[in-house]
Amino acid sequence: MFQLLNTSVRNSIRRGTLTTPHGILQTPFFMPIATRGVVKTLSSHDVEALGSPIVLANAYHLWLRPGLEVLKAMGGLHAFMDWKGAILTDSGGFQVFSLAGLRKLSEDGVTFQSHIDGAKMTLTPDRSMEIQRTIGSDICMVLDVCTELPASEEDLRHALELTTRWARRSKEAFLETREGSINPDAALFGIVQGGTHLDLRRESAEALMAIGFDGYAIGGLSVGEPFEDACRVLEHLDAILPKDRPRYFMGGAQPHEIVAYVQRGVDLFDCVLPTRNARHGLLYRFVHDDLTRPDFYETIHVTNEKYKMSKEFGYLRHLFSIDEMLGLRLATQINLEFYLELMERIRASIV
Amino acid sequence: MFQLLNTSVRNSIRRGTLTTPHGILQTPFFMPIATRGVVKTLSSHDVEALGSPIVLANAYHLWLRPGLEVLKAMGGLHAFMDWKGAILTDSGGFQVFSLAGLRKLSEDGVTFQSHIDGAKMTLTPDRSMEIQRTIGSDICMVLDVCTELPASEEDLRHALELTTRWARRSKEAFLETREGSINPDAALFGIVQGGTHLDLRRESAEALMAIGFDGYAIGGLSVGEPFEDACRVLEHLDAILPKDRPRYFMGGAQPHEIVAYVQRGVDLFDCVLPTRNARHGLLYRFVHDDLTRPDFYETIHVTNEKYKMSKEFGYLRHLFSIDEMLGLRLATQINLEFYLELMERIRASIV
Repeated sequence: MFQLLNTSVRNSIRRGTLTTPHGILQTPFFMPIATRGVVKTLSSHDVEALGSPIVLANAYHLWLRPGLEVLKAMGGLHAFMDWKGAILTDSGGFQVFSLAGLRKLSEDGVTFQSHIDGAKMTLTPDRSMEIQRTIGSDICMVLDVCTELPASEEDLRHALELTTRWARRSKEAFLETREGSINPDAALFGIVQGGTHLDLRRESAEALMAIGFDGYAIGGLSVGEPFEDACRVLEHLDAILPKDRPRYFMGGAQPHEIVAYVQRGVDLFDCVLPTRNARHGLLYRFVHDDLTRPDFYETIHVTNEKYKMSKEFGYLRHLFSIDEMLGLRLATQINLEFYLELMERIRASIV
Repeated sequence: MFQLLNTSVRNSIRRGTLTTPHGILQTPFFMPIATRGVVKTLSSHDVEALGSPIVLANAYHLWLRPGLEVLKAMGGLHAFMDWKGAILTDSGGFQVFSLAGLRKLSEDGVTFQSHIDGAKMTLTPDRSMEIQRTIGSDICMVLDVCTELPASEEDLRHALELTTRWARRSKEAFLETREGSINPDAALFGIVQGGTHLDLRRESAEALMAIGFDGYAIGGLSVGEPFEDACRVLEHLDAILPKDRPRYFMGGAQPHEIVAYVQRGVDLFDCVLPTRNARHGLLYRFVHDDLTRPDFYETIHVTNEKYKMSKEFGYLRHLFSIDEMLGLRLATQINLEFYLELMERIRASIV
């Protein structure tokens, strides 16, 4: 499903195509976040018009609302949100570990209280696969264990070994649920953990490669570690992970970080920053064509007085000043356009 | 600018065209409300896509924010909000009398405190014309006096006579500000007042007709009076107002009321209900083709549990349940579509 088209002699940047049941995607690419089946403020038609071929949804959130019964009745998330492009789903692990209350981790899975109504629920690797199959995701993620930081090496190793066992169970469940599912040709990605410990990262990657996945995500970064540490982990994994499988950086990345990460062999990104910042009136825009300059872009506060008379931003500023939600939407479109254009420029640079 | 095409032998319903500097409008028509230069939740492109050839903006609100300086710099409201259709502007009188604080009415105008920052401001007929000319409105409204109800006949008469004097000053100011304005071929409508007193209504209408306007609005209705009283006033005015000028019903009207009012010779409507109700999850839809049946439409609460599995409303219900603003927008589109379709059906019935 992944085809490598070009690589660079200077660094590990790569250009390729990722074929999914809902379209062929040019890599590297960026996924707008549609956690609960909607890119906040945008219709599926808007996202399509922006030119994004994929969105990222979340198994945990969709499991809670609208729930599997509704998703089944609707024929999956594509039909529910009227989205023709591809969908990648997070397994829900990260959300269970960050949002839910009273977590109890066991070999089997994680028991927790719903952050919505406090209901006791259990997420297991099998259950996460069932949810993602019901969603009809094109790219499913294994359920992984997220460790609270700081953590001892022993805790990290323990979490990592459990993540590996869950990855194996996830793959089994993924294969078992293929038949009769609404999107049988979906892909499954493993998630490499191990924090900033290079040895643990290697162990994790090799264990996952032994199981075999359609792609490999790098989890546990963008959690507060220095930028240089993230780069070091990516460089390390670049030499270990198979070249013929896509790599997905899970976690927020500023535009200049995306440039740094693609140079270290990453193909897929998602980030809440363009959409969340937009809703606070913070807009991204290009300043220089040379993406290797750290200042190739800038952010502006559209609510600033100086944009009052601006033909470009005056109306948007007015919408923010009267608390009109159209402003949030127009800003979201501007920022997603920026991130998508950034990926386009990155791809164009790889020839 | 107004051309009558068809009338009925059964009642006073009429079909015509209203030519404005920004398009030829088929009457009767409905105007979505864009008080502050935006139909809440919708982009100008959305409104265009819905097929509305006109929106209604408000001189008072736009005077306060973004202000005349910005509107001038932007080249008027059409350019500011990137709207290619026509714009009708309320003079701001109603808002001064309903929103602003510490009002003081004099022969010259009305002094009040801005509802935003408490600043002392004065709205006069001349000032309202200046604001509407700066907005670049296609159809301007005279500044009128709105009387708090209940009011004695003496108070009503006093308000009405002042409204007439202001209407004369408005027309003078309108003609004086024509040259050099960004939309010189705009039209000016007078506003008939007089509450439910038929004699006062006649006096008001005849005084305005003596001044001469491009169209006549009927103000002071939809303020709590019984539906039958509104019908009676419209029937009374239908016989007085010139047939070759458009009539605009100022104020809210439910779908069945619109049907009743067009039968009494009204051509233009606006109403906050479709958009406001939409934001509360209340949707309009047709039930019967026969518009003369009082139950030709119904409203549904999209948040109702029974729409959970609905292919038509399930996604919208989900958006409301997660407080996603896209839901408000989709509902707004559904309700405006309904009102615009209602007008289309009404026009089609007049042959």
